[in-house]
Amino acid sequence: MKNKAEIKKSEIFPCDVVLFNNINLKLDSGYQLENFQIHYQTYGKLNKYKSNAILICHALTADQFVADTHPITKKNGWWENMVGPKKPIDTDKYFVICSNVLGGCIGTTGPKELNPKNKLPYGLEFPAITIKDMVKAQKLLIDALEIEELFAVIGSSMGAMQVLQWVIDYPLNIRNTIHIAGALKHSTQNIAFHEVGRQAIMSDNNWYKGNYLRNNLKPERGLAVARMIAHITYLSEKALHEKFGRKLQSKDLISFGFDADFQIESYLRYQGQSFVKRFDANSYLYMTRAMDYFDVTEIFPKVMKFNGIDNDHIHHCIISFTSDWLFPTKENKEIVKILNKEGKKVSFTEIESDKGHDSFLLNVPDLYKTISGFLSGNYKKFRA
Amino acid sequence: MKNKAEIKKSEIFPCDVVLFNNINLKLDSGYQLENFQIHYQTYGKLNKYKSNAILICHALTADQFVADTHPITKKNGWWENMVGPKKPIDTDKYFVICSNVLGGCIGTTGPKELNPKNKLPYGLEFPAITIKDMVKAQKLLIDALEIEELFAVIGSSMGAMQVLQWVIDYPLNIRNTIHIAGALKHSTQNIAFHEVGRQAIMSDNNWYKGNYLRNNLKPERGLAVARMIAHITYLSEKALHEKFGRKLQSKDLISFGFDADFQIESYLRYQGQSFVKRFDANSYLYMTRAMDYFDVTEIFPKVMKFNGIDNDHIHHCIISFTSDWLFPTKENKEIVKILNKEGKKVSFTEIESDKGHDSFLLNVPDLYKTISGFLSGNYKKFRA
Repeated sequence: MKNKAEIKKSEIFPCDVVLFNNINLKLDSGYQLENFQIHYQTYGKLNKYKSNAILICHALTADQFVADTHPITKKNGWWENMVGPKKPIDTDKYFVICSNVLGGCIGTTGPKELNPKNKLPYGLEFPAITIKDMVKAQKLLIDALEIEELFAVIGSSMGAMQVLQWVIDYPLNIRNTIHIAGALKHSTQNIAFHEVGRQAIMSDNNWYKGNYLRNNLKPERGLAVARMIAHITYLSEKALHEKFGRKLQSKDLISFGFDADFQIESYLRYQGQSFVKRFDANSYLYMTRAMDYFDVTEIFPKVMKFNGIDNDHIHHCIISFTSDWLFPTKENKEIVKILNKEGKKVSFTEIESDKGHDSFLLNVPDLYKTISGFLSGNYKKFRA
Repeated sequence: MKNKAEIKKSEIFPCDVVLFNNINLKLDSGYQLENFQIHYQTYGKLNKYKSNAILICHALTADQFVADTHPITKKNGWWENMVGPKKPIDTDKYFVICSNVLGGCIGTTGPKELNPKNKLPYGLEFPAITIKDMVKAQKLLIDALEIEELFAVIGSSMGAMQVLQWVIDYPLNIRNTIHIAGALKHSTQNIAFHEVGRQAIMSDNNWYKGNYLRNNLKPERGLAVARMIAHITYLSEKALHEKFGRKLQSKDLISFGFDADFQIESYLRYQGQSFVKRFDANSYLYMTRAMDYFDVTEIFPKVMKFNGIDNDHIHHCIISFTSDWLFPTKENKEIVKILNKEGKKVSFTEIESDKGHDSFLLNVPDLYKTISGFLSGNYKKFRA
């Protein structure tokens, strides 16, 4: 028995879940996580050689519902434009897996779930999670699915961090990677924005030192503010200007008050309000912390240099966007530079887009073409 | 009697105050403000021709204590490196005036002060204030001081907005302007950041719909979060990276928790904590709103075109900083372009600095030289 994993339909969400009972997951912090579970969704069909599996690693606030209706918001999956039959990540061809990350709040074990020790929601009793821990959990899922090698691992933003971690920790189990709008480390400015978001949550009276669920409360106002801050950083100044400018909500009149006069204000308020319906505030703390802690500036070049035998076979695709100021091209290029220095197979493209960091989620035809081209090119070679 | 202004020493702050009793100040909103007062500080001596007066318009969270110890924080004045004897704005030569803006919280009438109608702190009963209103109040102060013409009006950021407003509304009363890191309008991204700051304040349980002072409360946590957000925007990514990078607070260990692990986190927390001791939360709402409402993209070119006779004499100096992403060079240049199109006297310089928007407050020798050069050049001509 590879691991004591039990796969079944989830009872709470329209997806599968793998239960790891009586297995301890040793985390970066030293904490041993017991009886954890991973909720995940799949699309397409695994072929008989098990050679067409693609793992998608989701970003900070996304989840396993990549390409089907979200069970809470009833909206389209977050990458429904990218993943599906005849889409750039073509589910007629590939078997796509996406799991809610460890520490998340859509079924996978996280601060919202019950601590087996006291049957109460973990809250801050939940251990800190790192990107490495998330990937460790994903590897257990892949093992449970009995997939030896992933055809590709794909991720944007926090997902891109997971892609790099896969390359570092499990190079023998992956064949290709697509790393979109990421970095070797979370920058000072990004840590700063995250810290303000966390302070907004922890300053909410309803946060209750993290124990709000035990008290039937939710720090929704703090979480909404955190989301609003983050949302500004996902868009470019140009996108904001072109979409909203200084347009007013109603007529040409300003209210001389603190209601939402400008369209940008009501847009942000709406973003905050809708986010709190689907996301757990503590999960937001843990996820942002995981990103802040991410720093492979030392280990990544080392692994590329010394463990070549393990990772020479991987074809890396690195993508950045011109107007992304959160994970700018400069930072993505640092990864390309290291890969080139060590003679790895690496394709790099900077895509022209004025939509900012969120470009990876939006209708950017060059992104579709780059991803579908990279995947089918490699898939042909692979099958040839 | 020009206006019923009474000048005296302030009883609450070490500066002067002018009381406007039985005068109504008609605001942009239509509201008539009665019995208001303006706290202001002066440095140097007004010469017998009354021709050496410089008005400094302060930025969002600054005040009249430009060049002497702040009565609350006990720290140096916010522009003590710029203003004083033999400093770039040389108080041996010039008579420098700086008044706390209308709606402020360091003595001038604002939401913290008592509403004469009910003898309770105004809170949200205080009327909305615009940049135009602030300048109108400053003009009343200048009248009360019996100064016909200001040798210069100088301001950075929100202060720069006031400088433009002086040019529009009272061109005959000014001879020179120094406009630092401003814009014709507040941008969408800047409105967005302000709105999130306001939401942080208004989400604080202690805000109490603006009536916290009537209830002996203060929304300090919300205000601290608002300050933290704003503070990030005042610095450049490079400045943050070079000052803090990913340096940890203590040793090389991360806490795997939500204390301030990174130096940037404790720095921001400190900025938030110290701000709430000196600033009123409602004042922050009113000041940010005034900036958001500011938009002279239509009126400024019109006034420059048609009222030439009134403003041809003004020599404008426009300054921007390379790394300022809040009021970038591009936006400052729009003003220069308009002035040039109409053949006005305008000097423009973009100063190389990696310190971001805050460059105007910091040790930037090129800024000192530009300001002292511009002032003394014009002062010589003026006296010749």
